[in-house]
Amino acid sequence: MSGIARVVRLARRPGPDIRPEDFKIAEVDLAEPAEGEVQVRNTWMSLDPYMRLPLTGQGGLHAAMAVGAEMEGAAIGVVERSAAPALPVGATVMSRRGWRDRFVAPAAGLQRVDGEFPPQWRLGVLGLTGLTAYAGVEFVLKPVAGETLFVSGAAGAVGSIACQLAKRRGARVIATAGSAEKVDWLLRELGVDAACDYKSEDVGAFLARICPEGLDAYFDNVGGPTLDAVLGVMKPWGRIGLCGAIAQYGDDNYRAGPRDFFTIIEKGLTVTGFNAGLWGARAGGEMLQALGQMLARGDLVWRETVVEGLETVPAAFVSLFDGRNLGKLLVRL
Amino acid sequence: MSGIARVVRLARRPGPDIRPEDFKIAEVDLAEPAEGEVQVRNTWMSLDPYMRLPLTGQGGLHAAMAVGAEMEGAAIGVVERSAAPALPVGATVMSRRGWRDRFVAPAAGLQRVDGEFPPQWRLGVLGLTGLTAYAGVEFVLKPVAGETLFVSGAAGAVGSIACQLAKRRGARVIATAGSAEKVDWLLRELGVDAACDYKSEDVGAFLARICPEGLDAYFDNVGGPTLDAVLGVMKPWGRIGLCGAIAQYGDDNYRAGPRDFFTIIEKGLTVTGFNAGLWGARAGGEMLQALGQMLARGDLVWRETVVEGLETVPAAFVSLFDGRNLGKLLVRL
Repeated sequence: MSGIARVVRLARRPGPDIRPEDFKIAEVDLAEPAEGEVQVRNTWMSLDPYMRLPLTGQGGLHAAMAVGAEMEGAAIGVVERSAAPALPVGATVMSRRGWRDRFVAPAAGLQRVDGEFPPQWRLGVLGLTGLTAYAGVEFVLKPVAGETLFVSGAAGAVGSIACQLAKRRGARVIATAGSAEKVDWLLRELGVDAACDYKSEDVGAFLARICPEGLDAYFDNVGGPTLDAVLGVMKPWGRIGLCGAIAQYGDDNYRAGPRDFFTIIEKGLTVTGFNAGLWGARAGGEMLQALGQMLARGDLVWRETVVEGLETVPAAFVSLFDGRNLGKLLVRL
Repeated sequence: MSGIARVVRLARRPGPDIRPEDFKIAEVDLAEPAEGEVQVRNTWMSLDPYMRLPLTGQGGLHAAMAVGAEMEGAAIGVVERSAAPALPVGATVMSRRGWRDRFVAPAAGLQRVDGEFPPQWRLGVLGLTGLTAYAGVEFVLKPVAGETLFVSGAAGAVGSIACQLAKRRGARVIATAGSAEKVDWLLRELGVDAACDYKSEDVGAFLARICPEGLDAYFDNVGGPTLDAVLGVMKPWGRIGLCGAIAQYGDDNYRAGPRDFFTIIEKGLTVTGFNAGLWGARAGGEMLQALGQMLARGDLVWRETVVEGLETVPAAFVSLFDGRNLGKLLVRL
């Protein structure tokens, strides 16, 4: 044994309102790194909405997690003990072993991180977040000048990149977010053409006011009533890109379709789901290169909301679902 | 006044099980054709599943019909009195004034029908039915050799054309229909590779047995539990073309989405709705020409189920929803 790690476990299956008490922090023994293994001290971990899905017990791609199991997710860490020549002490690595402060694992399963950008960007704009936004805008929706694209969850990590990519393509971009501060940020810093705080204006009313001619394309991060409202105002032949459905993740069946699915037939809509896993495997290198170039030129605004320490993780994760955070939510450990 | 017409009216709003008693036949006076008008005796009328939608009172593209209102739909008829030089007595015309035996209307709203094919084909393979099937296969799903396409409602008017078009493109075609006789017809006459009677085998079990590697594409005529089963076995990147949802048309909300909509995100599926209205306006001429050439060469099997007389219309319409008819359901008047 070489020490103690603290790890976040699922304490109980969350109800419709996920709470910090649904998680607990436990201490576990760390084994001595065996041949080919390293011990890593995590420095950054990612909190993403999709991580709620296996907690629901509803199945799907993210299989149901047992109560008591250790949470998982992307993390950046530094090797502090090494029995693997490829990863010496001091090396920075990315893993799927977030939600804990330390771990021991085979070096072969870890990805070394270097390069010109802050390492935690690999958890966001240069990781799953950036790949998701890029695929949705550049490969799925492809908005062009003269078209109006609507982005929900626009001040979030994926949404904020999606807005900027769509603006670069020349589209008119309209957006929703969960506070007046976020709306202000979207308009002033990201150059979004119009935005609404969905907590103070009905999204359907906003769309009718701002875009009476209807929408050409929709980048959907939230599902739920917003998707229902959008289906009502899509133009014929419109495109909807499904990225996530955060407004549904507390539902009895978060996987359910919209109330007015039949509109897809009547309007000849195309609805395409996308995720970083599939698109990353197909075109990840190309996408990360393009995003890296934009970042290097200062052409992409990237905002992180950072909280500190493993003990803050349960409350920070819960905050993802109340619309409080701006940009990418990260924990510095 | 120049006579009497018989017309089918909505007698009451149908329940989940639509019944002939939901309709009634009434006699109405026919006005003398005014200048520019003609009196038409209908010879053929079309019965199509979508005609149930306005009866539900649930809104959508086909606005809710009032109880007592006259039913509508495509019909072929012959001009029997004319006050319009462009349409002399004896001319064959197509109208939206089906569900009645005679009507008087402005000639300008009628379409003259001539050409080498039986006129009632304009209600089917050379009309909305053919356009729908063609658009779904050739413009939306585009199955190719090496791919497996699944067609539900495959022995119906649209489904039977869709199967044949997909076979011509080189795809493997598997199908469901509502009787052993229909399955036999699909296999023997249409060259479908595998087919199942959904009344005697679970569709999910059939798909698992016939296509364990998953589906590349799905031509959906039925929605409901079949769409749920298909979502579970689509391959990543698969395409679903939404044509109709006949299994849902008796539901409280026939417009609702599938239980596992979220699979669209997880598998990166593309779901595209289509209809003859939108695609006909965009490419109707091209599509009808292609279908006409296939028919002229004998390359397309086209089957009609014909019932006789206006009094049979309510029961015939109801029969659309129990899976009894093969091919296109027509009424000869």
